[in-house]
Amino acid sequence: MIRVVATGTFDILHPGHLWYLKESAQLGDELYVIIARDANIRHKPRPVIPEEQRRCMVEALRPVAKAILGDLTDMYRPIRELNPDIITLGCNQHFNPEILERTLEKQGMQTKVVRISAFTNSPFTSSRDIVQEVIRRSDAMKRHIEPGDHSSGCDE
Amino acid sequence: MIRVVATGTFDILHPGHLWYLKESAQLGDELYVIIARDANIRHKPRPVIPEEQRRCMVEALRPVAKAILGDLTDMYRPIRELNPDIITLGCNQHFNPEILERTLEKQGMQTKVVRISAFTNSPFTSSRDIVQEVIRRSDAMKRHIEPGDHSSGCDE
Repeated sequence: MIRVVATGTFDILHPGHLWYLKESAQLGDELYVIIARDANIRHKPRPVIPEEQRRCMVEALRPVAKAILGDLTDMYRPIRELNPDIITLGCNQHFNPEILERTLEKQGMQTKVVRISAFTNSPFTSSRDIVQEVIRRSDAMKRHIEPGDHSSGCDE
Repeated sequence: MIRVVATGTFDILHPGHLWYLKESAQLGDELYVIIARDANIRHKPRPVIPEEQRRCMVEALRPVAKAILGDLTDMYRPIRELNPDIITLGCNQHFNPEILERTLEKQGMQTKVVRISAFTNSPFTSSRDIVQEVIRRSDAMKRHIEPGDHSSGCDE
């Protein structure tokens, strides 16, 4: 049984996430996903969707066996507990695979780190693209409505 | 083999969609989902995510066997082709179940129409809630940045 671990924020789900998770799952028999904690996301604006909702949506995706929240203080703790054969990195995760492998080895793990390629076959392949499209439309709406009318122009 | 059909826009995925699809799937053996076409969404602002991307994300959810795009002119055509035992309605779909059953019966289908309850256990259970949170943050950012600086403040 080859266990694979993927990690990420997974804010607003899109086909780039799905590609990363499918490719990760194909490397083994079961895919676990570690979801970044709201409090630990400091290198970019905090996600729109709260951590537990991000976790449950990722776990609903077919390639994923189980999604868990990361640790608040020790990012390696869930990795030690899952003890995966493979960890996959998304195209925009700024870890060096070799350095990460050596760090894991020092903690007693023989884990291979694999970089998954980017996916660019859809128009909205990042949460940022989706957020920016929402803002673009909202700004366009505001230019066409009376001052004082704050309807968002967006629905279900 | 009991075939269930669910329908909807499924713009930005959230736990309300997931609840609707899980509850629908539990009524039978295989769940097909008909995705509303971009061109046919006139009763609310057009979705942020294009139809093919909405389709592929819904099909990636575990309860869903297959997701297909609706027909551009005849909403009953894919239903006739799938010939489901059950059609489910989401809590915000404004069909009357009895009238829909009778309409389907006139087209030769013995299809039961079931209303699925609302899901309110997460903070963002509609695409509109998510869109409005994005806009709220963007507006808050704009009030705190210099005129002429158009950074969105949003990332992956």
